Amino acid sequence: MTELAAVKAALKTQAVETPSWAYGNSGTRFKVFAQQGVPRDPREKLADAAQVHAVTGVAPTVALHIPWDKVDDYAALAKYAEDLGLRLGAINSNTFQDDDYKLGSICHADPAVRRKALDHLLECVDIMDATGSTDLKLWFADGTNYPGQDDIRERQDRLAEGLAEVYGRLGDGQRLLLEYKFFEPAFYATDVPDWGTAYAHCLKLGEKAQVVVDTGHHAPGTNIEFIVATLLREGKLGGFDFNSRFYADDDLMVGAADPFQLFRIMYEVVRGGGYGPDVAFMLDQCHNIEPKIPAIIRSVMNVQEATAKALLVDREALAVAQREGDVLEANAVLMDAYNTDVRPLLAEVRGEMGLDADPMGAYRRSGWAAKIVEERVGGQQAGWGA
Amino acid sequence: MTELAAVKAALKTQAVETPSWAYGNSGTRFKVFAQQGVPRDPREKLADAAQVHAVTGVAPTVALHIPWDKVDDYAALAKYAEDLGLRLGAINSNTFQDDDYKLGSICHADPAVRRKALDHLLECVDIMDATGSTDLKLWFADGTNYPGQDDIRERQDRLAEGLAEVYGRLGDGQRLLLEYKFFEPAFYATDVPDWGTAYAHCLKLGEKAQVVVDTGHHAPGTNIEFIVATLLREGKLGGFDFNSRFYADDDLMVGAADPFQLFRIMYEVVRGGGYGPDVAFMLDQCHNIEPKIPAIIRSVMNVQEATAKALLVDREALAVAQREGDVLEANAVLMDAYNTDVRPLLAEVRGEMGLDADPMGAYRRSGWAAKIVEERVGGQQAGWGA
Amino acid sequence: MTELAAVKAALKTQAVETPSWAYGNSGTRFKVFAQQGVPRDPREKLADAAQVHAVTGVAPTVALHIPWDKVDDYAALAKYAEDLGLRLGAINSNTFQDDDYKLGSICHADPAVRRKALDHLLECVDIMDATGSTDLKLWFADGTNYPGQDDIRERQDRLAEGLAEVYGRLGDGQRLLLEYKFFEPAFYATDVPDWGTAYAHCLKLGEKAQVVVDTGHHAPGTNIEFIVATLLREGKLGGFDFNSRFYADDDLMVGAADPFQLFRIMYEVVRGGGYGPDVAFMLDQCHNIEPKIPAIIRSVMNVQEATAKALLVDREALAVAQREGDVLEANAVLMDAYNTDVRPLLAEVRGEMGLDADPMGAYRRSGWAAKIVEERVGGQQAGWGA
Amino acid sequence: MTELAAVKAALKTQAVETPSWAYGNSGTRFKVFAQQGVPRDPREKLADAAQVHAVTGVAPTVALHIPWDKVDDYAALAKYAEDLGLRLGAINSNTFQDDDYKLGSICHADPAVRRKALDHLLECVDIMDATGSTDLKLWFADGTNYPGQDDIRERQDRLAEGLAEVYGRLGDGQRLLLEYKFFEPAFYATDVPDWGTAYAHCLKLGEKAQVVVDTGHHAPGTNIEFIVATLLREGKLGGFDFNSRFYADDDLMVGAADPFQLFRIMYEVVRGGGYGPDVAFMLDQCHNIEPKIPAIIRSVMNVQEATAKALLVDREALAVAQREGDVLEANAVLMDAYNTDVRPLLAEVRGEMGLDADPMGAYRRSGWAAKIVEERVGGQQAGWGA
Repeated sequence: MTELAAVKAALKTQAVETPSWAYGNSGTRFKVFAQQGVPRDPREKLADAAQVHAVTGVAPTVALHIPWDKVDDYAALAKYAEDLGLRLGAINSNTFQDDDYKLGSICHADPAVRRKALDHLLECVDIMDATGSTDLKLWFADGTNYPGQDDIRERQDRLAEGLAEVYGRLGDGQRLLLEYKFFEPAFYATDVPDWGTAYAHCLKLGEKAQVVVDTGHHAPGTNIEFIVATLLREGKLGGFDFNSRFYADDDLMVGAADPFQLFRIMYEVVRGGGYGPDVAFMLDQCHNIEPKIPAIIRSVMNVQEATAKALLVDREALAVAQREGDVLEANAVLMDAYNTDVRPLLAEVRGEMGLDADPMGAYRRSGWAAKIVEERVGGQQAGWGA
Repeated sequence: MTELAAVKAALKTQAVETPSWAYGNSGTRFKVFAQQGVPRDPREKLADAAQVHAVTGVAPTVALHIPWDKVDDYAALAKYAEDLGLRLGAINSNTFQDDDYKLGSICHADPAVRRKALDHLLECVDIMDATGSTDLKLWFADGTNYPGQDDIRERQDRLAEGLAEVYGRLGDGQRLLLEYKFFEPAFYATDVPDWGTAYAHCLKLGEKAQVVVDTGHHAPGTNIEFIVATLLREGKLGGFDFNSRFYADDDLMVGAADPFQLFRIMYEVVRGGGYGPDVAFMLDQCHNIEPKIPAIIRSVMNVQEATAKALLVDREALAVAQREGDVLEANAVLMDAYNTDVRPLLAEVRGEMGLDADPMGAYRRSGWAAKIVEERVGGQQAGWGA
Repeated sequence: MTELAAVKAALKTQAVETPSWAYGNSGTRFKVFAQQGVPRDPREKLADAAQVHAVTGVAPTVALHIPWDKVDDYAALAKYAEDLGLRLGAINSNTFQDDDYKLGSICHADPAVRRKALDHLLECVDIMDATGSTDLKLWFADGTNYPGQDDIRERQDRLAEGLAEVYGRLGDGQRLLLEYKFFEPAFYATDVPDWGTAYAHCLKLGEKAQVVVDTGHHAPGTNIEFIVATLLREGKLGGFDFNSRFYADDDLMVGAADPFQLFRIMYEVVRGGGYGPDVAFMLDQCHNIEPKIPAIIRSVMNVQEATAKALLVDREALAVAQREGDVLEANAVLMDAYNTDVRPLLAEVRGEMGLDADPMGAYRRSGWAAKIVEERVGGQQAGWGA
Repeated sequence: MTELAAVKAALKTQAVETPSWAYGNSGTRFKVFAQQGVPRDPREKLADAAQVHAVTGVAPTVALHIPWDKVDDYAALAKYAEDLGLRLGAINSNTFQDDDYKLGSICHADPAVRRKALDHLLECVDIMDATGSTDLKLWFADGTNYPGQDDIRERQDRLAEGLAEVYGRLGDGQRLLLEYKFFEPAFYATDVPDWGTAYAHCLKLGEKAQVVVDTGHHAPGTNIEFIVATLLREGKLGGFDFNSRFYADDDLMVGAADPFQLFRIMYEVVRGGGYGPDVAFMLDQCHNIEPKIPAIIRSVMNVQEATAKALLVDREALAVAQREGDVLEANAVLMDAYNTDVRPLLAEVRGEMGLDADPMGAYRRSGWAAKIVEERVGGQQAGWGA
């Protein structure tokens, strides 16, 4: 196989998981702007996700969020997904929207609240059993707003205890993916604020526990690709929550704010052996002002473009320049791949996959956008509160 | 008058404006945790504000937010406030919660949306006429989330045009206070992102236009007291929106995150001649997880403590050390005031004002907290969406 | 002229000024790593700069730094430059390396130090008269390390007074370009920390005073293209000091850290009418670990590539999408230009200018690097301290 | 023992290590301002350190930096220290100032450079054997300036290999303290950029390897006390490099920029059982513009004041409020300690220790400052380059 053929083959196997909640309404603390045609239940979210997969060919799975995607029969939901050409992906827990969680969930000072949160997490594993999902993605909003509000260290003890119980419940082939976040919604101290904390907990839990990198969850100036390289080296990178941000956790379309950073991240993934089924590539975004389905298509394409560029890096030439300490040449080798316009290559790949070369155009021409506006009238639109 | 007597006299004249919305519910994009006893209309907010003034003696005015505080008869509301021992303060506009404002208000590309926003702003001046408020506080959520989304420069042109129309409507003794904000809810570009932009617009508008400094609206590392000193030097500091933050616009209690910074700000206010009626000292906070009235009392006290320390700086000794280039001594003079425990002094001041030395205790003993929980049952609690 | 022809024509007129000091040694506070072949005097710096211009065709001027480039006969130096196909560019002052400037220069509390600094600035205008330079570029390291160290406001008064005297000395066709910087080497308060401060001073000085944007001199998260658009709208953008940074003022090669940001900046320049002789495009970089001449060539090429992409933006299509509030399409129009590989276009432009299509290769093949290593033996290498 | 007596007893046992290099000249990349009376050799540095200990009573040890403090006979140096009432503290390595280290030291691509760096580190352990120092403090300037410059992951492999060799050389009672740093002097990627990386390496090395927290080495917004609490919980906090900063690694006097943060850090130290001999409290500062000895005295006092406040926290009341979820009361308990003016208490403690109540005044009156200016004439002043 020629090198280009290998790149194309790799691109054809790509799988980007889209999140059910990105098809629903979202917003800021100031306002949620509702959009027409937004899904009203998990099946309609899956129907939208199927459109994304239909035009991109690389978005075969959909992450669920419990309770936003609560249904009576998860096996039936999985079957429905299958009929749409999809599979259900990671199960995302929610321990931040019940009134009891005002001061935390599994880190709360009150054992009753911790128990309630843990029961929810265990229920999520039950759901995984029903859906066949392999990944339990845990993000905790736990933290404090004011110095002194709670004991930082005891909260770590409670966290460790809770995680251990959930970990013990995991079946074969199931993983616990622990997400960290720099700030928000807790403003003073977050209980899992950085990769180091997530890593330390996962290490103690065992092999089935890995860290998730959300690209929007870091302090300004943080070198994310360094974290990616380090976690891969430690065998502890479980996956990504992709999105992009200019300042806080903006949850914009991945690749929109800093496409060069996305490329550097994907390069470390490829270089570190993380391009494959063991690392989950998920989107976690909010399309507050732009139409949701096309925004997700664009996001999937942005990941593809960054991946294509990462795969095109001449690693032999790079290794030579690095070994020789040729700073400018090593940088130039990397930039050469980044500066390449990979859109024609991806159009070709799509053609070979039997897809339209232009996913955005294909979606536009499909009439789906008009159809859902017309059909999805009445009912309660899906959103973060539903 | 001795120096200490002068400090006490100055502290007795302090006036901190509390915002009506801080008495209602607020939260993050993830969750609004409702609290018991929260006001259901502007009068109940004023009743709560009266408690704050009753125990602190330095919170005589309340800022309104339109439409959250919309009433049929503003003169009657003003009278109601007066009966409670309060006055109505600044009128705050809202051009971010109508569906039409998804892509902006007075900076929107569509003239119809701009007109609608402007009409709202003009209505706010009408309300000022009715309430006797002197300050129109303008914060614009306008901005863009993605590069290219709109033309940065044309948005400035529209902003200038809109502001000019509002400015032209101001009566004698009325001011326009323009707020800037680094980010949120727009993530890529904000139309009034920094003091420089606000200043440039105010300069062109004229003498009645001044800049408001919200202490939570800056990039990390920004020296806020420098901005305060500069705006005072330019005669363009209109007031403060006080709160505190660790990372983004957290809207925590003022002085909670960095009390030393608050002291430095108050020192520049005092040093620059800004301690007086021309600079409005307003709170703009969100008490998401803590009870609201005591949080506001604490905030007022934090401002008082920072002010007391600022007033205690030995400015003569400071000037000598500065002139001599004695870095350590100049810093030590400032720190000496900061390190002073001013709580006994403030207790004394309160005693001389006929108040309880301990405002938090006085509020606790008043029984107000229990009373509102009992009485305010049913109805729609006030919040950002109401 | 077709559109592409217009783009090419515009690219051929580009002029990027390289700084004499970037050809000398530089480093961090931890270590300056000397390089072989580094110039030992201003003439050798010019000789290196001539190599950059020879292979890129768009680097015709060289900025001087006084006293680092002090010579007895500036007219002779200008003549020497001319013989090399170059012109002398902006004169950069230095009021930070004399022992007297430990606590500041024109903002210093001591009038004698201020006088000394002002005399230096006036001398720089004398040098401009001799060299024919039109731009006096002023960067002040002035500031304080500790709260209280000096009076923030008085320092502004001294700054204003000093700038006014220098401004009064400017001849016809001469400008004062005022640079701002967020932090370093002063750590607590910098006397010209942001564009707002520089703008306010320039406004009072008059038309010959304009602001310089150094792309590395901002707080994290700052939207630099917004500042560019705003200054152009105000007629106050005098020029750029280009470089790039990941966290602080790293002074890396422009376009190396965030090429997308450089593109957005260049787009606002083009869109705002700033692409032309009135806005100076200067580099201000430190090549601490990479060879200096090729790093400067690469930097010039990076500016060219960003400019080419900015010129390729389909502004009509963009305006339509913006007017229609089509967020994704507007963003896509911008990204379409950014994602274009403009290297073939620039190769063509170079060919039409009679240059080698590959400036880096041309320089490598020229043998200059080996020549200067061989010839420049002995003497004192140029650096920041010399 | 009463509670206050316990606090006083704890304060009397405090030990803050001062760094030999803080007595010498330092500066920024722009300029090193030399000061009169600065030491010219390690003995003179120790003589200055003895003054700090004489007036504070809590600065009994001095950290050395190799090669800046290289001497022929370390045992003699240790004896000299002893005669001054001091002990030699941590040995700090330097692998960043040799020309060979331009692209790194133990992470360098070239095995010969790595060997050289390792030999230096091993030599530092030899010195520890001679001086009786127990701590080897390792800070690596290693990193890259440009994406692609070197392989991030291979550098980690080299780092691990190098650390293992050094670790193996440690004797009984000797520790390796690994420091992390967010950025500088490498601008793109630092090889030990955060506590997570340092922790992961120390974990693999073994019990004698622990992490050092330099308070200036974090991204903006980082909650340092969280890291302290976490490392103590993991048994991996080896010590502190104290200093303070407003934006980057400013190396200002500890407690000067954010005294509230220092208090919060010291509270977590006390609460987490880290107040004792197992955690080294070291200063690592640069007194660029202020006189060095008094700046260090002030810094030691600032640490004392923060410690006193931390010891005064009413932990029982705090635990009650935390358990009850009383956000405001818990915060108030903490703030009550912070707002206490502990200077009278520390004056008392000093009196009981037989010291002057006013260390700054005692130093001023000692005449030492004038004496060293007079006596230390000629020779080469100590600085970072020496």
